[in-house]
Amino acid sequence: MREAFHDQLESVFSDLADICASVEVAVTKATAALLTPDAAIAEQVISADAAIDGARERVEENALALLSLQAPVATDLRVVVAALRMVSDLERMGDLSVHVAKIARLRTPNSAVPEPARPTISRMAEVAEDMVHRAGEIIRSRDVDAAGLLRADDDEMDKLRRSSFTELLSKDWDHGVEAAVDIALLGRYYERIADHAVSVANRVVFVVTGETPAS
Amino acid sequence: MREAFHDQLESVFSDLADICASVEVAVTKATAALLTPDAAIAEQVISADAAIDGARERVEENALALLSLQAPVATDLRVVVAALRMVSDLERMGDLSVHVAKIARLRTPNSAVPEPARPTISRMAEVAEDMVHRAGEIIRSRDVDAAGLLRADDDEMDKLRRSSFTELLSKDWDHGVEAAVDIALLGRYYERIADHAVSVANRVVFVVTGETPAS
Repeated sequence: MREAFHDQLESVFSDLADICASVEVAVTKATAALLTPDAAIAEQVISADAAIDGARERVEENALALLSLQAPVATDLRVVVAALRMVSDLERMGDLSVHVAKIARLRTPNSAVPEPARPTISRMAEVAEDMVHRAGEIIRSRDVDAAGLLRADDDEMDKLRRSSFTELLSKDWDHGVEAAVDIALLGRYYERIADHAVSVANRVVFVVTGETPAS
Repeated sequence: MREAFHDQLESVFSDLADICASVEVAVTKATAALLTPDAAIAEQVISADAAIDGARERVEENALALLSLQAPVATDLRVVVAALRMVSDLERMGDLSVHVAKIARLRTPNSAVPEPARPTISRMAEVAEDMVHRAGEIIRSRDVDAAGLLRADDDEMDKLRRSSFTELLSKDWDHGVEAAVDIALLGRYYERIADHAVSVANRVVFVVTGETPAS
């Protein structure tokens, strides 16, 4: 019984890592759509999201089957519930990539990100992509130390968000209200992607150690 | 066994309704902090959020105890999992109220919402508050029809969000970039509060009917 439980749980975690890989593609492509800019790539992100939603449903079904057939208690129960939460985080990260892609699509053939805002937004996108990539590795490796490093990266994201606000509220900003609003929302979306990546990593720490790290 | 299960489940749903009532207070006060403006009310919202987080943890513990002790299967299992998701939605609605309160606090003694933006933002806040109130009633009543009406209200929220963008991107907007960015983010926060209220109502429909409504 316990062996069957652990095999099925491994399969759920393997599916979670696969979804995280799809989310990483979504974040990377959404950023390419934004900075190139490229409406066709934006469309790819938007239409690919249904596959992430479908994968989420399958993981949920498998996790529910596990709860139903194996009736785990104590730590095992909490691990399955953690998996259910991780798949919610991952689906949300996919949705946020779609929001980025939709802003990109709305402004083509122009880029939503004017020149002076590019370094900070590019760096936010890079940090978000890297955090999603590493969240995927952490799901596979269960590496608790790597999860700690991911939380440190989230501090960089917070600093970048503040820099971005400083830029668009400075007297030198001459790209108008529309670009400023786009950038404020883009910053919010990348920040939320990073938050969810940290949340995924924290749930892995919980799965391994039984303790949720202080955020 | 089944009777004990249903008594404990009722207690979880009663706690969910109580948390929803706290979230309603948070949304109402955050809006008052924003529109009055009033930094002290903003502080109340920010400091009260810890109680919502604590209540969330207790509901999660109770739901996990229910899974562990009663090992529900089939529909009963899905109902408990729905409760776990509802409490995540409610906690997130509390966090979003804190985001509104923090923008209010940042701009006092001024209001973050200049005169021409007040009607739309006030109406968004009103719709969000009403949706949270009715989500709480739906948790208590399990009224599937009321949940359908809540989804219709979400369409009004989407329209208001578009109106708000039109206002701040119009040639007549003369309140600068900072106010526009605040309003774009406030609109996003109220929209997300409404989304989560619909999500809570949809989960109640699932609990009653076994079917998740199409969104």
